[in-house]
Amino acid sequence: MFKDLKRVLIGRPLKNELMGEEKYGILWGLPILASDAISSVAYAGQEILMVLIPIIGALAYGQLTVISCFIIGLLILLTLSYRQTIQCYPNGGGAYIVAKENIGILAGVTAGAALSVDYILTVAVSVSSGIAQITSAFSQLRHYTVPLCVVMVLLLMLGNLRGIRESSRIFGIPAYAFIIAIITMLIAGFLKIKSGYIPPEPTIRSVGEPITLILLLRAFSNGCAALTGVEAVSNAVPNFKEPSTKYARTVLLLLSIIIFSLFGGTSILANFYHVVPSEENAMLILIAEEVFGKGFMFYYIMVTTFIILVMAANTAFSGFPMLVAVMAKEGYVPRQLSMKGDRLSYSNGIIVLSAISILLIVVFKAKVSSLIGLYAIGVFISFTLSQTGMFLRWKRVRGKNWVAKAAINCTGAIVTAIVVVIIAITKFNEGAWVVVFLIPVLIYLMLKVKKHYVAVKIQLRVKNEELDEINITRDIYTNRVIVPIASINKSSIRALRFARTISDNVVAFCVAIDEESGNEVREKYERLNTDIPLVVKYSPFRRVVEPLLKFIESTEYDYNKGDMITVVLPQFSVKRGWHRILHNQTRIFIEKELLKHKHIVLATMPLQLKDDEYVLSSAKYK
Amino acid sequence: MFKDLKRVLIGRPLKNELMGEEKYGILWGLPILASDAISSVAYAGQEILMVLIPIIGALAYGQLTVISCFIIGLLILLTLSYRQTIQCYPNGGGAYIVAKENIGILAGVTAGAALSVDYILTVAVSVSSGIAQITSAFSQLRHYTVPLCVVMVLLLMLGNLRGIRESSRIFGIPAYAFIIAIITMLIAGFLKIKSGYIPPEPTIRSVGEPITLILLLRAFSNGCAALTGVEAVSNAVPNFKEPSTKYARTVLLLLSIIIFSLFGGTSILANFYHVVPSEENAMLILIAEEVFGKGFMFYYIMVTTFIILVMAANTAFSGFPMLVAVMAKEGYVPRQLSMKGDRLSYSNGIIVLSAISILLIVVFKAKVSSLIGLYAIGVFISFTLSQTGMFLRWKRVRGKNWVAKAAINCTGAIVTAIVVVIIAITKFNEGAWVVVFLIPVLIYLMLKVKKHYVAVKIQLRVKNEELDEINITRDIYTNRVIVPIASINKSSIRALRFARTISDNVVAFCVAIDEESGNEVREKYERLNTDIPLVVKYSPFRRVVEPLLKFIESTEYDYNKGDMITVVLPQFSVKRGWHRILHNQTRIFIEKELLKHKHIVLATMPLQLKDDEYVLSSAKYK
Repeated sequence: MFKDLKRVLIGRPLKNELMGEEKYGILWGLPILASDAISSVAYAGQEILMVLIPIIGALAYGQLTVISCFIIGLLILLTLSYRQTIQCYPNGGGAYIVAKENIGILAGVTAGAALSVDYILTVAVSVSSGIAQITSAFSQLRHYTVPLCVVMVLLLMLGNLRGIRESSRIFGIPAYAFIIAIITMLIAGFLKIKSGYIPPEPTIRSVGEPITLILLLRAFSNGCAALTGVEAVSNAVPNFKEPSTKYARTVLLLLSIIIFSLFGGTSILANFYHVVPSEENAMLILIAEEVFGKGFMFYYIMVTTFIILVMAANTAFSGFPMLVAVMAKEGYVPRQLSMKGDRLSYSNGIIVLSAISILLIVVFKAKVSSLIGLYAIGVFISFTLSQTGMFLRWKRVRGKNWVAKAAINCTGAIVTAIVVVIIAITKFNEGAWVVVFLIPVLIYLMLKVKKHYVAVKIQLRVKNEELDEINITRDIYTNRVIVPIASINKSSIRALRFARTISDNVVAFCVAIDEESGNEVREKYERLNTDIPLVVKYSPFRRVVEPLLKFIESTEYDYNKGDMITVVLPQFSVKRGWHRILHNQTRIFIEKELLKHKHIVLATMPLQLKDDEYVLSSAKYK
Repeated sequence: MFKDLKRVLIGRPLKNELMGEEKYGILWGLPILASDAISSVAYAGQEILMVLIPIIGALAYGQLTVISCFIIGLLILLTLSYRQTIQCYPNGGGAYIVAKENIGILAGVTAGAALSVDYILTVAVSVSSGIAQITSAFSQLRHYTVPLCVVMVLLLMLGNLRGIRESSRIFGIPAYAFIIAIITMLIAGFLKIKSGYIPPEPTIRSVGEPITLILLLRAFSNGCAALTGVEAVSNAVPNFKEPSTKYARTVLLLLSIIIFSLFGGTSILANFYHVVPSEENAMLILIAEEVFGKGFMFYYIMVTTFIILVMAANTAFSGFPMLVAVMAKEGYVPRQLSMKGDRLSYSNGIIVLSAISILLIVVFKAKVSSLIGLYAIGVFISFTLSQTGMFLRWKRVRGKNWVAKAAINCTGAIVTAIVVVIIAITKFNEGAWVVVFLIPVLIYLMLKVKKHYVAVKIQLRVKNEELDEINITRDIYTNRVIVPIASINKSSIRALRFARTISDNVVAFCVAIDEESGNEVREKYERLNTDIPLVVKYSPFRRVVEPLLKFIESTEYDYNKGDMITVVLPQFSVKRGWHRILHNQTRIFIEKELLKHKHIVLATMPLQLKDDEYVLSSAKYK
């Protein structure tokens, strides 16, 4: 039943050959990868105003324009830098790869850890902001903000478990709808102002303090959230159709132009209309209401803004699993994260991402202002490492125009490093400390995991020159078999028969609670036609493992070092899931204990049980 | 580390021989078994008043006395009845046994289900009421009511996992302290009134409606919670020292006398002092404040009341696991519930009881008035069934004075049946409906479980006359072995060596993703000195199971029906718990799939991994 449900939700398994088909061009690649950055239009400007307005009042609007210019400058710099990265790393040039190859393992792992944290926050922030757009218009839904966000993440999870291309189609068209919506709003807004419309002066509550540098830097830090999407494109180069490098570079350029227009435009409009965004009233919704009134366009903007934010979360759903899979292949995170699921998506990565972001949403009650404190620092750390890596690469590789290219990346590295420091300082108390401490912990864990995999590899390694000396023949070990039995029944007889086929040295082993039950088993056993000896032990404990191990070590058993011992245990294979809790509990415990001994092999013999009703009714007829 | 923690919390394992020692006489048996009934003094009277006062105001106190008389009458009847039950059932005469033996299986299971529900409620109600005593005196703790209750249940769980006798000692002395405390309060309270003290008239808010029968019955239903402890004594007869029957009967009698004095006495005092109990102010605490003021005796009563309520919960901790174990031995609940743990207590039953009662406490926010709605109905159903069973037994067995004895049980059955109907009707809307529906569901499940165990037994059964015909010799099955390998390493070589010792018919089976990796394995494999053939399959899926099953069914493998196939899988046995998540995930999946086939045995070969640091440092030196 669970399997059927899985099929309905996720779809039929796909074959490896279909891998090639699950890729995208510019048309679908742009919305799926760029939406993170585009969607920041919905909250970056707002979060800048929400820092400034309560302190400096109406002066905030002028400062918004200044800060937006800085952020757009950063965007241009990053675009130039990352177009170079895409060119050099056609197989995916995430910060992890670039930093690892050009700086060193520690830098790579740091970038990986920082980016992972940011992908998770992208989901939490974007979904929370998306739902906030809806609840700004429909205030009666405000009570259900957190459950709505959780459902949204779960839907994204399902969509992505279905596979890449299908998700790009699901989310592609509405992205363009959003871009058109905002551009329409910008034009209409400017025309309305130009036609002489004077927007009503809003009631602004502020303490009216003077503008300070630290305040502006705090606002700037919030605005930096706008730039978190750039990384996704360079990470996802191999997901593009061929020529993938060219497509990726084009998408990155288009993306920058779009952000430039939308982010810049809305900042100017917010300035004209003097909107006062808050936790309850999203900035874009307020502007839309001013420009269009509560008509069709108002709802159209609300819906498309919501959808683009969901798509931004979706960017992380394609970025995070891919990043983690790369790291898993190199052994820095558990291997399972590099396995593709039935539908050729990295299922485990998708599930991990969903689980942690749901946790964040619940803990921070889906409040964007709370989550934004943790956001952006991770991505700027990875920007810095990636740019530094590229700079070192140019110095090493050189080639045409390398000085100019190195200069771009070097500038990028320095500027983003400054931003990291600004964010860490100005937002330390507002949540950045979590990330500042979490990233080193993640790095430590990743190095530990890698160490373990290396240690395992060393232990398993067989050198090429050793191969010829390895001998696998019958005489290496002696195999002896022990069959624990509790009574004489079809299961124990089957186990004994199996045991007899794999060895001439079999012992049936019975732990009895008292002499009476021991004798009963012995009497029955003696009537069987077998050459397997029976050993009965009485146990003051209620356990089977201790007497068994004691028996193996006793002189009675005459165990020689080097012998393998196979213990045969039956396992009921039940028809109904809930029957499982009625069986096999002791077996799990025995298994766990015995497998601690390297000379003991555990043979699990399945025993199919028939349907209860069938057995009972046919027993009646006999 | 988990094991060490377990040892510290629960103690060292005990041997079966110690079983005899873990029993109690009258001195310790009385507090551990009677505390449920005695403790009801703390809430039964209060819950009667809390139903009456808001409706009929000060008239409630007179009605409290009347209702208390009815309840004490019931108590006397039950005591007489149950003394007879103890006499007849020295091995434990819980309602389950008595009903099953004398009425039928369905009656027994019904009694078992009803009692189980009530034991769970005993824990929830007693712990909630106990914490309410504390928060009545220290109102600043009121915010933490639910967490305090949960911690209390967990402490009880730990205490009981340690074993029976130790828990009786932990809880024995304070029980006597409570009895002395209440008796002191009764005497002081009566003397104070007699010396002419006139208590201040409390402010009673009531709608002042006339007394109705249904109102009185509702109050009576609440008061019936006082009688839930009686069952425990008859259930626990074998836990007494020899002569256990005599001891148990004496304990039951003493218990009745104590309840009679305490419950009757406090009802009269409540009447004299006109206390107005509420969710925030427990009745006993109010009386104590009136009588003693907020001095030593006030806190002494608060503390001992709290402790006796905790002990009442503890009654369920000895009763529930024992009841469930009896039912588990007969196959009505999962067998694991009949297994004694390291410390000779029924660990699983204790854990189940704790988990469900914590759930109830959380759901009902630890409010006694809410929980009381579910309470008592279960225990009165079991009273009725038990008495009916005893009546039928006398009719069948007869013996000295059987008519008089039958008459007692018959009266008991009729009266308790009437109480069941009263509770079900008057408290249906207040939660009794949950129990009314839950009990049939439990009965259904129990019968289902039993059916399954019977069906399994039939399938495993070997009749005595069949024994002589059973042949366990080498030639019955052919055993063939398949060793799935992913590469040539120490683990796969070890698996192949083991395979070679158990069969002459071994195949190494490799699923490769592409031809390149397949050829690499083949080249290395061919250099090994072995007669085991290697089969390489290419899989478009990323799974191992499907190609393996396909291979077994193919003509290439030439599988004959009746052959056993052993698949050898290595399992890493890791040094650190968290390493487990880095391994063996595929193995779990393969195991689950292969064991669905009855001709496939799974041999799990443990592979001890050394400590990471050790491996890495010794690899360095080489």
